[in-house]
Order: sequence, then structure tokens, then C-alpha cells
Amino acid sequence: MSLNNACKDGPVLIVGSVAYDSVRTPFGEVREALGGAASYASVAASFFAPVRLVAVVGDDFAEQHVAALAQRNIDLAGLQRAPGKTFRWSGYYEFDLAHAHTTATELNVFQDFRPSLPDSYRDSPYLFLANIEPTLQLSVLDQVRRPKLVVCDTMNYWIESAKEKVLEVLARCDIALMNDAEARELCGEPNLIAAGRKVLNCGPGVVVIKKGEHGAVMISHESYFAAPGYPLEELKDPTGAGDTFAGGLVGYLARCGQTDDETLRRAIIAGSVMASFTVEDFSLNRLFSLTPEEVAERYHEIIAMTRFGGL
Amino acid sequence: MSLNNACKDGPVLIVGSVAYDSVRTPFGEVREALGGAASYASVAASFFAPVRLVAVVGDDFAEQHVAALAQRNIDLAGLQRAPGKTFRWSGYYEFDLAHAHTTATELNVFQDFRPSLPDSYRDSPYLFLANIEPTLQLSVLDQVRRPKLVVCDTMNYWIESAKEKVLEVLARCDIALMNDAEARELCGEPNLIAAGRKVLNCGPGVVVIKKGEHGAVMISHESYFAAPGYPLEELKDPTGAGDTFAGGLVGYLARCGQTDDETLRRAIIAGSVMASFTVEDFSLNRLFSLTPEEVAERYHEIIAMTRFGGL
Repeated sequence: MSLNNACKDGPVLIVGSVAYDSVRTPFGEVREALGGAASYASVAASFFAPVRLVAVVGDDFAEQHVAALAQRNIDLAGLQRAPGKTFRWSGYYEFDLAHAHTTATELNVFQDFRPSLPDSYRDSPYLFLANIEPTLQLSVLDQVRRPKLVVCDTMNYWIESAKEKVLEVLARCDIALMNDAEARELCGEPNLIAAGRKVLNCGPGVVVIKKGEHGAVMISHESYFAAPGYPLEELKDPTGAGDTFAGGLVGYLARCGQTDDETLRRAIIAGSVMASFTVEDFSLNRLFSLTPEEVAERYHEIIAMTRFGGL
Repeated sequence: MSLNNACKDGPVLIVGSVAYDSVRTPFGEVREALGGAASYASVAASFFAPVRLVAVVGDDFAEQHVAALAQRNIDLAGLQRAPGKTFRWSGYYEFDLAHAHTTATELNVFQDFRPSLPDSYRDSPYLFLANIEPTLQLSVLDQVRRPKLVVCDTMNYWIESAKEKVLEVLARCDIALMNDAEARELCGEPNLIAAGRKVLNCGPGVVVIKKGEHGAVMISHESYFAAPGYPLEELKDPTGAGDTFAGGLVGYLARCGQTDDETLRRAIIAGSVMASFTVEDFSLNRLFSLTPEEVAERYHEIIAMTRFGGL
């Protein structure tokens, strides 16, 4: 499949945060740059399928950022504007870039965010519930008519503070995304494979565990797939990598109009490719300069680096 | 290639420790069980090629362990017996099995170990220098005539205490094995890929970085290969996994008589397969009960879990 082929299914509805991030890493710093899970996921998905965004921003949200998202063919009918300031996150990474250290979270307009879907969004066949309060994820699920595929993300904060609601979301989704620490914590199980199987018992047919530089694994009742991390020597800022991965994955599935094991494997590689670009620069800078040709080239590089023959 | 095919090249000379290990994990405990890097590596390599062992044991080394090694067709002409006790290591693993905690190391006869190769060993074409003091690795290198392939392993202890000697070994070997933390420490470089490239600058044409449950990556000047970890739900004791991996890798190369990129990739998978069995039980128990059919079956499982199609 070339990225120039038309999307067979879709669009993808994405709900989550749109934020201004201030991030410091050993390789530089940005102040109040465009961020938020829904931003990263939407732009990544837009390489593969039409996207509908559901989020809230404040009256300080810059027109240039609206324009940048619109230019990626992202439907912004669901981007609410509320009086007040846009959600802000500040954090930094140490030398190994492995863990984000949060220095400040200002919920601002996100505090009272109640996702309300435009009528035009209610028939969305693909749904990505990015990492937000699980009650908000459920509210979006309630507003969509019979989605074909529901993908959800979560984070340790909700696993600790609203586990019951997280489980309710899991019971209603088809593909659960989480990172390795979250899978272990959710299931109280140090073995990652065993933890993944326990997540399957919560409802989703597929769990995809993100392992940062170590790639991702997909576990279903019938299949196991291991995707490598793309070997990056110049990694500037890991913020948004997981959200980009998710957006690429869902977008790819919407484009293919299929969710069988073979397609899921390719979607995981597509997501990995998108995430590998995001971390090359701060904010969404790299995604905004990315071309479909670069996406295809890196995808083929990952094929080359995983191939080996029989015993 | 079937494991029933004859070895095309070989034998493999392996030098390292033969030890008695006392290990406790959340899944059980053994006292004074057969262990040591050379034991694991030799038995793993013996599935693919004839093996010559160079090590020292004390006069307490049990006949049953000599017999068990001999039964794997391992040449024990280089297994010295010295008056005193066999090298002993005691340690434990926490719930996540990620790090070994050493409670006691008794060098015993290993303290004065000076590897002296039987004449019959000096023409060995394949050499694996397991993790021992780098001056001993160099001494073995000096005693072998023109080996076709030299593979070395090291550990953080020698990187910290004898870095110059470690670099001397690296300059004389073809394939360097190390784990991710060791690569980062040796090169003072947190980015694993950049660290791997720096190791190449020390001499070896290939560096293989072991990442435990996350698999391994191979970096050379022309190629990059990512091998997944085998997804084990029942992992009892990680002791010896890296040594088993190394033995399987070198043994496989000796069997093929080739060290091109394609063969190296298959060798890394063969090593991963062997290591995945070792950790299923304590000591070398699983390796001793393992059949070539089981090795072939797991190798093909890893093919299945890494395959994906084009974009």
C-alpha cells in the first residue's frame, strides 16, 4: 500500500488533550509549544486517514496552531474553545530520556472539559480515546454510534486514581494501548507477557504494550507480535511518542479498513515509524515537516532490520 | 538448516568460569548448582558444534557434573583441576528478575587461574572469551593460532576496574557482546545506538547488545538487526541467560562456517532461543533436558512473531 492510496474506511475520531508544553531535555528546550496527546495523535493519523478532533483549548490558543492542524486535513468542528487558558504541561527529561519529570500541570480549561460531539462526528467508525480521565473517554464512547473499532490509551495516574473506570473503558474497547509499567501496575503482575494476557481478560481483543526505545509488543488470544524500536542516535525530545504511535496505528487501520492480525502488525510498524520521527525534534515540529515518502522509507528500513532466515 | 546437519566448521573453544551457584528467585532456590559462564556457553554451543572447554574447578567438583558436560560432547581436556574449592557465586533476584544481587563471591581456585591450552586446542577456529578478567582473555588469545572468529563478552566490573585491558580485548575480537548498561558505561554514552557505534570504533566489526527481556540488537558498520525477546510467562531464573545466548550464537556460526550478515542474524536468533530455555529453570537444568526439535520449534516461533508485510 502506498500512502497515496485513498483511505478505504475512516475517518478517525480522536479525543484527548491539546496543550501548550514547556519541555527541557539535554538537547534543548521549548516554551509553550504545541503539545497534548490529541495533537500528536491527530497529526500522526492524518498521514493515513481523515481525522476528527475532539478537545478543548482556551482563548489564548494561537491561530497559527489552528491553521497548522487544519492544514493536515484535521476536522476541527469538535475543537471547543472555552474562556480561559489552554492546558499547560511543563516537564524535563534527564540524560537517558527515559522518564518525564513533571514540574507543573495547569489544567486550565481542561478542568471543566465535557466532550460534546458535533452531530457530524457521531458516525465515526474509528475511535481513539487518548489518555484523559476515563469518565470522559466513556462519555465520548456513549456519543458515538456503533464504532467499528475503539482504541484506548491510559496512564498510570488514572490506573492509580480511577482504576474501576479504567476497567470500564477497557471492557468497551477493542485495542488497549499502554506502556510496560502501566500494564504491570494495572495487573499487579511483573511479567509483561502475563500482564498483557490479564489485560485481555478485561475485554479488549488486543493489547499493545509500548516499550519506548525497545519497541512494542502486541498480544492477542491467537497471536504475538514484537516490533523493534527504531534505532535513533539523535533523539531530542520523547514527549508525544506514545500518542504519535497510537495515532499512526489507528490511522493506518482506518486507511486499510481491516483489523486482522496481518493488518495490525503493519499498523504497529506504521505507528512506530511515526513515533520515531516525533522524537527527532521538539513539539510537533518534525511531524509538520514530514513527508509520506519519508514515512515509507523508514517503514522499509524497519523491514530490513528485522528480517532473518530459517534455522 | 536442520540441527541434524553436520557442523561445517568449528570446533568452538570457550574459556570462562565453571562455578557452583546458589541462587534465590521469587520462584524457587538452588544451592551449589552447576553454573558459571563457560558452563552455560559450552552446553548451549554444543547443540550446534563441537566444544572445547577451558576452565578450572576445585577438587570438590562433582563427577556427575563432569559427566553431564562430557555427555554434551564437550571436550574437557582444558578443564583444569586445582586443589581447593570450585568458584562459588551466591545471589538473588527480586520480583522483576531484572537485576542479580550478589550476596557472595568466593573465587577459590579461580583466584589463581592461568588458562593453559592443551596443544590439541591451539588450532581452534572459533573462540568465545566469556566474561573473565580481561588479562586472562588476552592470554587465551595469545595461545590460539589464527582463530577464524573471536567473540568476547565482558561485564561492568571489568569495565570499571580494568578498562584499558577491556579495550585491548575489544581491539582483538571480531564480535563484542555486552549488555545495554555495559555498552553505555564503556562509552559514557546514554544513547544505546551511539554507544554501539563507539564500541565498533574500538575494533570489533560487530557489536551485539543484549537487552534481557527486550531481546538483542546487532550493530555493524553496514547493518543493524533487532531481535525480539522471546515472550516467556514462566521465567524462573535469569542466571546464565547472556552466557547461553553467547554460546548459542558462536556455536551456530561455527556450524554454518560463515559469518556474513545473514548468518549473524540467524545466529543471534539461535542464541536467543537457547537463552529463552535456560531461564525456564534453575542452573543448566533446562539445557540438559532440551532437544534439537524444541530448539527448531522455538526458532520458528520467533520467525512467526516478527513477520509483517509491506506498507
